[in-house]
Amino acid sequence: MATGLKFGLIGSGFMGRAHAIALHGVAPTFGADYAVECTVLADQPLDRAQKAADSLRFQRASGDWRDLVADPSIDVIDICTPNYLHAEMALAAVEAGKHVYCEKPLALDIKQSIAVTEAAQRAGVCNAVGFNYICNPMMQVAREMILAGEIGEVVNFRGSYLEDYMGDPRVPFSWRCERRFAGAGALADLGSHLINMAHFLLGPIGRVCGVTRTVHKQRQQPDGIVRTVENEDVAQALVEFNSGVPGTMEISRIATGYKCGLAVQIQGSRGTLVFDQERMNELKLYRTDDTSGRRGFRTILAGPEHPDYAAFCPASGHGLGINDLKVIEVRNLIRAIRTRTNASPDFAEGLRVQKVMTAIELAAQQGGWIVPERITAS
Amino acid sequence: MATGLKFGLIGSGFMGRAHAIALHGVAPTFGADYAVECTVLADQPLDRAQKAADSLRFQRASGDWRDLVADPSIDVIDICTPNYLHAEMALAAVEAGKHVYCEKPLALDIKQSIAVTEAAQRAGVCNAVGFNYICNPMMQVAREMILAGEIGEVVNFRGSYLEDYMGDPRVPFSWRCERRFAGAGALADLGSHLINMAHFLLGPIGRVCGVTRTVHKQRQQPDGIVRTVENEDVAQALVEFNSGVPGTMEISRIATGYKCGLAVQIQGSRGTLVFDQERMNELKLYRTDDTSGRRGFRTILAGPEHPDYAAFCPASGHGLGINDLKVIEVRNLIRAIRTRTNASPDFAEGLRVQKVMTAIELAAQQGGWIVPERITAS
Amino acid sequence: MATGLKFGLIGSGFMGRAHAIALHGVAPTFGADYAVECTVLADQPLDRAQKAADSLRFQRASGDWRDLVADPSIDVIDICTPNYLHAEMALAAVEAGKHVYCEKPLALDIKQSIAVTEAAQRAGVCNAVGFNYICNPMMQVAREMILAGEIGEVVNFRGSYLEDYMGDPRVPFSWRCERRFAGAGALADLGSHLINMAHFLLGPIGRVCGVTRTVHKQRQQPDGIVRTVENEDVAQALVEFNSGVPGTMEISRIATGYKCGLAVQIQGSRGTLVFDQERMNELKLYRTDDTSGRRGFRTILAGPEHPDYAAFCPASGHGLGINDLKVIEVRNLIRAIRTRTNASPDFAEGLRVQKVMTAIELAAQQGGWIVPERITAS
Amino acid sequence: MATGLKFGLIGSGFMGRAHAIALHGVAPTFGADYAVECTVLADQPLDRAQKAADSLRFQRASGDWRDLVADPSIDVIDICTPNYLHAEMALAAVEAGKHVYCEKPLALDIKQSIAVTEAAQRAGVCNAVGFNYICNPMMQVAREMILAGEIGEVVNFRGSYLEDYMGDPRVPFSWRCERRFAGAGALADLGSHLINMAHFLLGPIGRVCGVTRTVHKQRQQPDGIVRTVENEDVAQALVEFNSGVPGTMEISRIATGYKCGLAVQIQGSRGTLVFDQERMNELKLYRTDDTSGRRGFRTILAGPEHPDYAAFCPASGHGLGINDLKVIEVRNLIRAIRTRTNASPDFAEGLRVQKVMTAIELAAQQGGWIVPERITAS
Ligand SMILES: NC(=O)C1=CN([C@@H]2O[C@H](COP(=O)(O)OP(=O)(O)OC[C@H]3O[C@@H](n4cnc5c(N)ncnc54)[C@H](O)[C@@H]3O)[C@@H](O)[C@H]2O)C=CC1
Ligand SMILES: NC(=O)C1=CN([C@@H]2O[C@H](COP(=O)(O)OP(=O)(O)OC[C@H]3O[C@@H](n4cnc5c(N)ncnc54)[C@H](O)[C@@H]3O)[C@@H](O)[C@H]2O)C=CC1
Ligand SMILES: NC(=O)C1=CN([C@@H]2O[C@H](COP(=O)(O)OP(=O)(O)OC[C@H]3O[C@@H](n4cnc5c(N)ncnc54)[C@H](O)[C@@H]3O)[C@@H](O)[C@H]2O)C=CC1
Ligand SMILES: NC(=O)C1=CN([C@@H]2O[C@H](COP(=O)(O)OP(=O)(O)OC[C@H]3O[C@@H](n4cnc5c(N)ncnc54)[C@H](O)[C@@H]3O)[C@@H](O)[C@H]2O)C=CC1
Repeated sequence: MATGLKFGLIGSGFMGRAHAIALHGVAPTFGADYAVECTVLADQPLDRAQKAADSLRFQRASGDWRDLVADPSIDVIDICTPNYLHAEMALAAVEAGKHVYCEKPLALDIKQSIAVTEAAQRAGVCNAVGFNYICNPMMQVAREMILAGEIGEVVNFRGSYLEDYMGDPRVPFSWRCERRFAGAGALADLGSHLINMAHFLLGPIGRVCGVTRTVHKQRQQPDGIVRTVENEDVAQALVEFNSGVPGTMEISRIATGYKCGLAVQIQGSRGTLVFDQERMNELKLYRTDDTSGRRGFRTILAGPEHPDYAAFCPASGHGLGINDLKVIEVRNLIRAIRTRTNASPDFAEGLRVQKVMTAIELAAQQGGWIVPERITAS
Repeated sequence: MATGLKFGLIGSGFMGRAHAIALHGVAPTFGADYAVECTVLADQPLDRAQKAADSLRFQRASGDWRDLVADPSIDVIDICTPNYLHAEMALAAVEAGKHVYCEKPLALDIKQSIAVTEAAQRAGVCNAVGFNYICNPMMQVAREMILAGEIGEVVNFRGSYLEDYMGDPRVPFSWRCERRFAGAGALADLGSHLINMAHFLLGPIGRVCGVTRTVHKQRQQPDGIVRTVENEDVAQALVEFNSGVPGTMEISRIATGYKCGLAVQIQGSRGTLVFDQERMNELKLYRTDDTSGRRGFRTILAGPEHPDYAAFCPASGHGLGINDLKVIEVRNLIRAIRTRTNASPDFAEGLRVQKVMTAIELAAQQGGWIVPERITAS
Repeated sequence: MATGLKFGLIGSGFMGRAHAIALHGVAPTFGADYAVECTVLADQPLDRAQKAADSLRFQRASGDWRDLVADPSIDVIDICTPNYLHAEMALAAVEAGKHVYCEKPLALDIKQSIAVTEAAQRAGVCNAVGFNYICNPMMQVAREMILAGEIGEVVNFRGSYLEDYMGDPRVPFSWRCERRFAGAGALADLGSHLINMAHFLLGPIGRVCGVTRTVHKQRQQPDGIVRTVENEDVAQALVEFNSGVPGTMEISRIATGYKCGLAVQIQGSRGTLVFDQERMNELKLYRTDDTSGRRGFRTILAGPEHPDYAAFCPASGHGLGINDLKVIEVRNLIRAIRTRTNASPDFAEGLRVQKVMTAIELAAQQGGWIVPERITAS
Repeated sequence: MATGLKFGLIGSGFMGRAHAIALHGVAPTFGADYAVECTVLADQPLDRAQKAADSLRFQRASGDWRDLVADPSIDVIDICTPNYLHAEMALAAVEAGKHVYCEKPLALDIKQSIAVTEAAQRAGVCNAVGFNYICNPMMQVAREMILAGEIGEVVNFRGSYLEDYMGDPRVPFSWRCERRFAGAGALADLGSHLINMAHFLLGPIGRVCGVTRTVHKQRQQPDGIVRTVENEDVAQALVEFNSGVPGTMEISRIATGYKCGLAVQIQGSRGTLVFDQERMNELKLYRTDDTSGRRGFRTILAGPEHPDYAAFCPASGHGLGINDLKVIEVRNLIRAIRTRTNASPDFAEGLRVQKVMTAIELAAQQGGWIVPERITAS
C-alpha cells in the first residue's frame, strides 16, 4: 500500500467530517497514488477529538491543534475550524513548513488574508482553500465550454447563493453573527463561494457596486440574552469583470425555501449555460447553432464524459453528492503537492475573493462603484 | 345583444392583432356585459388597414388614425403603434374626450409621459396602459398572497425580463434601435413590464442604481447600411422599494435562450413566491408553515380557484395563453369605463414606470443611486 | 366582411363556451377566410340558451336543438352536450345534410359510433371530433419529427392521461358515473384523447391488454342518495401498434394532484420526445446526434417556427392556452369543409378510438389481449 | 480504533469499486461502531486483484475467490461479479459460514435463487442483496409517509426504470446479452431494482401481465462476429399488488436519453408521491389537505430531517450521490450482522424479485396474468 501524505485535521464539525470522509475516499476513488494517512485529528476538548478520531478513523487525537503544527511527521494541516481561527492556524502551519488546506473564507478580513497569503508564498508550501463547488464536474465542463467559445462571446453573468438557514428570526445568535468570529455575514459564508465560482468561470471581477442588509437585526442567544447581529443577512451587487462582462450577484442566508441555491447563468452570444447546485448533477445549455424549431435548453446530466465523474461511477446520470466534491478537492490538493505546483484555488484566490467581498461592503456604505484590486489592508 | 363600447384600433401588427382577438373574445369569455364593438381599424396605408379590418372583423377601416379621433361614434381609442406615436395619438384622443387604451411603454420619455398623463387626468377620460402580464391569474393571486401576509414580511425582490430577439448580431437595425422612435432599448421594451410587475406586487420603487450596456453596438439596415444602435441591449439594477425591501432587476433583449423570461421571486420571512412567464400557468410557493421534512416549493397550477381563470375554463391546469391576458386586460378597461373608476394600470402608472426606467439610465451614467420620484421632465 | 359558414351550437357548458370563444376567435386569428357566423345556440331550457346566446354573441337562441337541424340556413351543427346525446344529435344533423362537429367521445359505444360514422359517410358531410389536444403546435411538430425520422426508428410509446376531478370520494354521483349517460368512465372521458393522440403520432393500435378499476365504488347524489358508480376510475393498458411498437397507457380520473396530465413519451433509436399537456407550450427532445458530453433533453418552447403558432403570436415562448387549441380545431374544420376534404380527426377516427376503449374494457374482463379492429357492434 | 468485521470483496469493476468506497466511508460517516476492515480483494487475474487492492486499500489481494471463502479470518463475502457467478459464490460462502452481501440480481433464475436463499437460511448467516436505491433517504421517507397514511389510501402505482446504455445498436454483444451469463436482460439488470422498490413501498406483487421485446436482435462482438441477443431490451407490465393496488412497470435498457430513470409515482386518495432517481435528492409530494388555490406538487429537498441524511451532511439540499446509497446499504448490513437480525433486503427478497421477473417473462410468452408466488423452480 502506498505510504501517503500525513494529514493533521483541525475541527470535526460539518466540514471536519466532510474532509475526513474525503481523505478516506480519495484513494479508493482516484487510485493508490492518492492514498493519504489520516494521522492526527485535533479538536477541543480532547474528548471530542478522541471520539471524532475514532469514528473518523484517525490514528491519533489531540486536544491542542498546536501539537499538529509541531509534529514533524505531519505533512498537511487541514483547517476546518470557525473563520476566526483560520488565519492564526494557517500562519502557524505555514511557518512550520506544512502544506495548508484551509476552509473558506480564507480569513476574517483583508489584513489577515494578505498575511496568510504572503506567508504561504514565502514559505513555498502548497496552500489551498476549500471552495469545493468549482470541483463539480459540471462546473469544470462549464468552464471548458466557455473557454472553448462554445457559447460564443460571454455577454452577461448572473449569480446567486441563496440559503435560508437564518431565515427564521428565532434562529439563535451565534458566532456567525459576530464580526470578530465570522467577519462578514452571508457575504463571507456564501458569497465567498459565489465569487470564487464567478472567477473560475469568467476571470477576475474589476468593479462592484452593492447593498447589504441585516433584516433580522437582533437575535436571542441560547441563554436568552438578546444580541445585535453585526453582519449582513443579504448582499446584492452589480459587478463588472475585467473582461467587461457585466453581472449581478445575490447572496442571502435568509432566502426562505433555498437550501443550497448556488446558481449561475452565463449568457453568451451563441449560447447560455445555467447551473444550480441544488441540482448539482445537471447543467443546462442552450445553443443557437441548433436547428430552428428544435432549439431549447438542454439538461445535461453528469456522466463519465465529464471531468472527474468517471472516478466515482462509470454510468451517466447516477449522481454525485456534495461530499464527492470534497474528494475531488482533496485529489487536487494532493496532486498539487506531488507535482509541486500551485493548488487551485489557493490562498491568493482566497485573498481575491476577500477583496471582492470587502468591496461590496464598501460600496454598500459609500453608494458607488469600488475596484476590489485597489483595496488595501488598512 | 348588448350594445357595447365602440373601439377604434390603431395598428394591426403584433399587438393590434392581439387587441382585436381580445376585443372579440371578451364577451364570450366574461359575459354580455362586456360586449364591445370593433368599429374602426386604422393603419397605413389604407390597404393594410382594410385587409386587417376584414380579417380582424372590424366594421370599417381607415388609412388615417385621426379619423378615429374625430369620429364621434368612437368611445375608446386603442393605440397599438410603435412607441414614438403613443404620445401624439393619446393626446389627440384625450383631447377629443375619448377613453384611451395605450400599449406600453406609455411614451418615449418623461416629458411625453407627463404630458399625456396630465392631459388624460384633466379630460377625465379613462386611461389604461397595456401591461398585460399582471393580468395573469397567477400574478393576481401572488399579489393577494403578499398582501394577506401569506409569505410573512417581504424581505427581498428579484426580477428579470430576459428575451433574445436581438441576441444575434445579424438582427437588422430597426426603429427599436433609435432613440427618437423607441426611447430606451431593452428597458423600455421589456423593463417597463418588469417594473410595472414589481410595483403591482410590492408598491413603488424608491431608489435605483444600475448599469446599461449595448453589446452589439452596430447593426446593418436591411439596405446594407451599418448604423449605430442608440439604446441599450442590457440593463441591470439594484432597486429599493419605498417599503425598504431591496431587490435586483435584470433586463436583456440579447439573453440567448430566453423567449419570454419575465420572472420574479419574492422572498418573505415565512414563504417565497417564484413566477416565470415562460411557465405562465404555474406559481411556485414555499411555506415555512409546512411540517418539517415535508417542506418544499409547490408548483401551483392555475385553476378556477384563482382570479379570472374560471371565465376561460372550469378545469384546473388546462392552461391560459398570452392572448388570454389581453382579454382580462380589456375586461378591466371596460369595467373601469363602466364604473367610472380609474383603470389600473393607468397612465399615472405608465409615468411612474417611465421614471424608474429613466432613473436606471441616469444611475448608469452617473454611477450612484437615483430617486425616480424626483426626476422631472427637463 | 366575409359571409361565412353558419354554425348552430348545442350546449353552452364547459365545451359550448370553449367552442363559442373559438368561433369568434378563428377569423381574427387565422384571417377573413375563416370568418364564420355564430347563428343559433341551443340549450335547455330556452332561458339558459338565451342567456348563453347573449354573452356568447350568437344571433339567436333556441330551447330545442331540433330547430337547428331543421333550419336550412345552418351549415354546421356543433355538438357540445353530454356523451349520451352525441349519437342522436349527430345522426339527425347528418340526415339533414349538415356538417357535424362533435365533442369527444364520439358516442356511448361501438354500435352508436358505427351508426354515426356510416351515416356521415353516406351523407357525404364533413364530420369532425373534438380531439383538441393534437391541434397543439407542439404535437404537430412532434408528429412531423417522428415522420421525418428525427428520432430514428420508434421503439416505445408511453402515454398517460391523469386528472383528479373525481379523486375525492365526496365528489357527488353524476351522469358521468352512469353507463347510459357517459358510456365508459375515465376511458371515455380522458382515454379517448390519449388514444387519439397515440394514433396521431404512431398510427393505429393493433392489440391491447388491460385492467380497469373503480376505486370509489359508491358516491352520493346531491340529494343524499348513495349510488353505485357504473364505470371505471382507472384504466391501465399495454398496447401494441400495428407497426409493432409496444406501449403503455394509464388513464385516471382519481390521480391526485394531476389536473391535465395528458403526457406522452416516444422513444426512438436516435432520440426521444416527451410532452405533457400541463406544460403545453413545451416539448422535450433528446437527440443522440448531439455531441458527447453535451447531450440532454432540450425543452423546446412553442414559437412561430412551429405549426400554427404564428397565427396567435409572432414571438416565441409567449404561450398558447387550451382555448387556442379549439381555435386551431375550428380552423381545421372550416378548411376541410371549404376544400371538401375529410376533417381530421373525423368520425372514423372517433370510431377507431371507441374500439380501442372497448378493447381495453374487454381485455380487463377477459384477462388477455384483444384486437380492437375485430370488435363489432354486438 | 474499533476492530470491525473483516470483508472479502470479489470483483473490482463498477460495483466492486463502489463497495470498496462504501466500506471505507461507512465509519467516518456513521461512526466508529461501523468500522470494518477491508481485508482481501479477489479478482482475476491476480494482477488485476493486486492493483485494485492497492488503490481500493485492501490489505491483501487474491487471484482466486475461493481463497476468501476458505479464509477463517473473513467474516463477510461481498460479491460484485457478473450475475452468473452470484449463486456459486454465495453458496460457497454460506456453506463456509460467512455472511454474504451479494449484488443484484440475486442469481440467474428461480432455481438458483431458491438454492442460495434456502442455503443461507439453513446456515443462519446474514444475507443481503445490493438493492441500493431503496436506501435513499427520500425513498425511506416516502415509505414512512405511505405507511403513516399521509397520502391516504394508495390507489395506484407507476414505476419505470429507463436507461439507454444499449440504445445504440452498435453497442457490442457482451455477457449481458447471454442467458447463461446474465439471465434476463433489462428485467434482471434494471427491473430487479424497480420490483424491489415497489415491494419496499407497497408490499408484495400478487399478479403480473406483460410483454418483453428485443429491439436490437443482433449485435456484433468486439471481434466482429455477429451474435443473436438472447434476452429482452424492454419489458412492460401491468401489476397488481397483494393489497389490490394496480400498477404499471416499464423497464428498458434502450430508452434513449435516460441515464438512471428509476422513477415511481404512488397515488393515494389524499396525496401523491413522485420520485425520479435522476433527481435523487428530491421527492415530490402533493397533498389534498393543503388549502384550495395553494395546492401543488412540492419538491422536497433531501435534508437532515430525513432518514440517514444527517450522517452525510448537516445542511439540507446539499445533495447525496449514488455512492452514498451504498454507504447506507453497508451500514444496514453491519447493523444486521451486529444485531443478528435479518438484513433487508435479504436473499428472500432477492428471490421474490426473481419470481416477479420470471412471471413477467412467462406472461409475455403466454399472454395472460401470472401469479409470481406460484412459480416454482422447474
Ligand atoms: N466548503 C463549504 O462548503 C463549507 C465550509 N465551511 C467552513 O468550514 C469552517 C468550519 O465550519 P463548520 O464545520 O460548519 O463549523 P462547526 O461548528 O460544525 O465545526 C467547527 C469545528 O471546529 C472545532 N473547533 C473550534 N475551535 C477549535 C479550536 N480552537 N481547536 C480545535 N478545534 C476547534 C469545533 O469543536 C468543531 O468541531 C468555517 O470556516 C466554514 O466557513 C462550513 C460549511 C460548508
Ligand atoms: N404588451 C405587450 O406585451 C407588448 C406590447 N407591445 C407594444 O405595442 C406597440 C406596437 O408594437 P408591435 O405591435 O410589436 O409593432 P408592429 O410593428 O408589429 O405593429 C405596429 C403597427 O402600427 C402600424 N402603424 C405604424 N405607424 C402607423 C400610423 N402612423 N398610423 C397607423 N398605424 C401605424 C403599423 O403599420 C403596424 O400595423 C409598441 O409600443 C410595443 O411596445 C409590443 C409587443 C408586446
Ligand atoms: N375536448 C375536450 O377537451 C373536452 C370535451 N368535453 C366533452 O364535451 C361534452 C360536453 O361536456 P361539458 O361541456 O363538460 O358538459 P357541461 O355539463 O358543462 O355542458 C353540457 C351542456 O349541454 C347542455 N345540454 C344538455 N342536454 C341538452 C339538450 N338535450 N339539448 C340542448 N342542450 C343540452 C347543458 O345544458 C349544458 O349547457 C362531453 O361530451 C364531454 O366529453 C368536455 C370537456 C373537455
Ligand atoms: N446495485 C447496482 O446499482 C448495480 C449492480 N450491479 C451488479 O453488480 C454486478 C457486477 O456488475 P459490474 O460491477 O457492473 O460488472 P463489472 O464487469 O464492472 O465488474 C465485474 C468484476 O468481476 C470480476 N470477475 C469476473 N469474474 C470473476 C471471477 N471468476 N473471480 C473474481 N472476479 C471476477 C471482473 O474482473 C470485474 O472486476 C452485477 O451482478 C450487476 O448486476 C452493477 C451495476 C449497478
